[in-house]
Amino acid sequence: MKKIDALIDAIERTGNPTALGLDTRAEYMPESFIEKFHRGDDAGAINAFNRSLIDALCDIIPCVKVQAACYEMLGFKGMEVFCDTLRYAREKGMITIADVKRNDIGSTAEAYAAAYMNGGSPFPADFVTVNAYLGYDGIKPFLDACEKSGGGIFVLVRTSNPSAGEFQDLAVRDGDGSFRPLYERVGLKVGEWGEGLMGLRGYSSVGAVVGATWPEEGKKLRALLPRTFFLVPGYGAQGAAAKDISGCFDGRGRGAVVNASRSLLCAHKKLGTNDFAAAARDEALIMRDDLREGISG
Amino acid sequence: MKKIDALIDAIERTGNPTALGLDTRAEYMPESFIEKFHRGDDAGAINAFNRSLIDALCDIIPCVKVQAACYEMLGFKGMEVFCDTLRYAREKGMITIADVKRNDIGSTAEAYAAAYMNGGSPFPADFVTVNAYLGYDGIKPFLDACEKSGGGIFVLVRTSNPSAGEFQDLAVRDGDGSFRPLYERVGLKVGEWGEGLMGLRGYSSVGAVVGATWPEEGKKLRALLPRTFFLVPGYGAQGAAAKDISGCFDGRGRGAVVNASRSLLCAHKKLGTNDFAAAARDEALIMRDDLREGISG
Repeated sequence: MKKIDALIDAIERTGNPTALGLDTRAEYMPESFIEKFHRGDDAGAINAFNRSLIDALCDIIPCVKVQAACYEMLGFKGMEVFCDTLRYAREKGMITIADVKRNDIGSTAEAYAAAYMNGGSPFPADFVTVNAYLGYDGIKPFLDACEKSGGGIFVLVRTSNPSAGEFQDLAVRDGDGSFRPLYERVGLKVGEWGEGLMGLRGYSSVGAVVGATWPEEGKKLRALLPRTFFLVPGYGAQGAAAKDISGCFDGRGRGAVVNASRSLLCAHKKLGTNDFAAAARDEALIMRDDLREGISG
Repeated sequence: MKKIDALIDAIERTGNPTALGLDTRAEYMPESFIEKFHRGDDAGAINAFNRSLIDALCDIIPCVKVQAACYEMLGFKGMEVFCDTLRYAREKGMITIADVKRNDIGSTAEAYAAAYMNGGSPFPADFVTVNAYLGYDGIKPFLDACEKSGGGIFVLVRTSNPSAGEFQDLAVRDGDGSFRPLYERVGLKVGEWGEGLMGLRGYSSVGAVVGATWPEEGKKLRALLPRTFFLVPGYGAQGAAAKDISGCFDGRGRGAVVNASRSLLCAHKKLGTNDFAAAARDEALIMRDDLREGISG
């Protein structure tokens, strides 16, 4: 079964298009929890924190997105945690996204695909995020890996950050003399690249990253790319609400998974408790209900 | 001293604007060398191979570029080698570039900058490569790290791969209604971002990746960005010769460092010898002389 179909199934099973964003940092954890691991072993504490969150959420959240940067900054110990988190989430039945935003020339992109997408990959994930600035031959090795492994990719199209538009909104001349913003041009290519990799549920293995913080752009991209699944970051701490992302979904309430990181990881701070797992679960249920209402509305 | 000045000094000291590209893979090494490490320990073999090459070349090549993908595909053992290679090259007096092409939203880009560019970074490098598709706020944390550490970045502007132009050449509308290709627009931003980070030798800490395989684009970018240092991949195995890259240098023969990976790493295959270090040295001297002639001509 293609992972894109497994993702859609898992979202329907849980009734929850949420991705748990494990952008875990030492400062997100309760002091008392870090103490347990002796100060200095941030990597060990983060690993235990991630595992507890996965245990607490795997029955109600279908998917994790693990942000590589937070683990790379801790060196190879951090990379071990990155790897263990991906494996543990998969073991617990969650769909896994390695958020690595990798990109390079063809021969090097092949090495990145091998790092994340093959059977024997050291950092095995169902999906990876990639950056398309190098064009098709930097993407092709990932498409080949999708074909072989059944996995998928999410290509950066319209990112969630404030300066996303600096390049992504530039007006680009089309063949017929008309204009469209660069992100649409990238989006159309993403749609094309997915044509040979269609799943059984109407979406291809080649998805797009579309920031929750840009409702209009999300709506336009949904109309333009009816068979491209969206990974939508920016909900919660980055400021987007359910109404902002409803346009990323199709008419049947499908077609996107919404990532939340800080709002779930740091829910215990808002509630003033050390029980971060229970706090995250409460917050996850609120988010799920918010999404259900926002999307159906 | 800013690392950009140290790089320019090192290039002048050796009279050689070459970067040794350590995109090392098991298949690049002589069979007999791999045997020594028992099959299966690719990471150990690659580490020893890299160290031998650094020993053999550090007096004639000023700089290494270590390609992260080849190490990531070997998992956390590979990341240890990535780290050790960067450290060893620095110990031997070479300027180090971590070729990671990282990119993300601001808070995450901060984590990447911490991974590579701070005093206590686990993968300490003098320069990192980054992708600017997310715009200024994904670059800002790297600029801050340049400011603090004295290090530098190379931003992807015009890459060396065949499909580089797919997005990078798109005609983008300027404020005055005129057009320029996207890569020039990115290049101009790179120039701007470097304004506050000028070194003493005429170049800023914010450099650009400009593929050797696109001579015309290189020449245009050199004229457009007089204070931006270029990292030029694509020489040798990717097909570019010295004449193709002469336009990336300024009138005094400065302003760029040219990366060669496979042509140096696999020189022993061309010569039919197992002494890969001696073969790489021979090839490096040929490349140096070729560059000297091509640039002055």
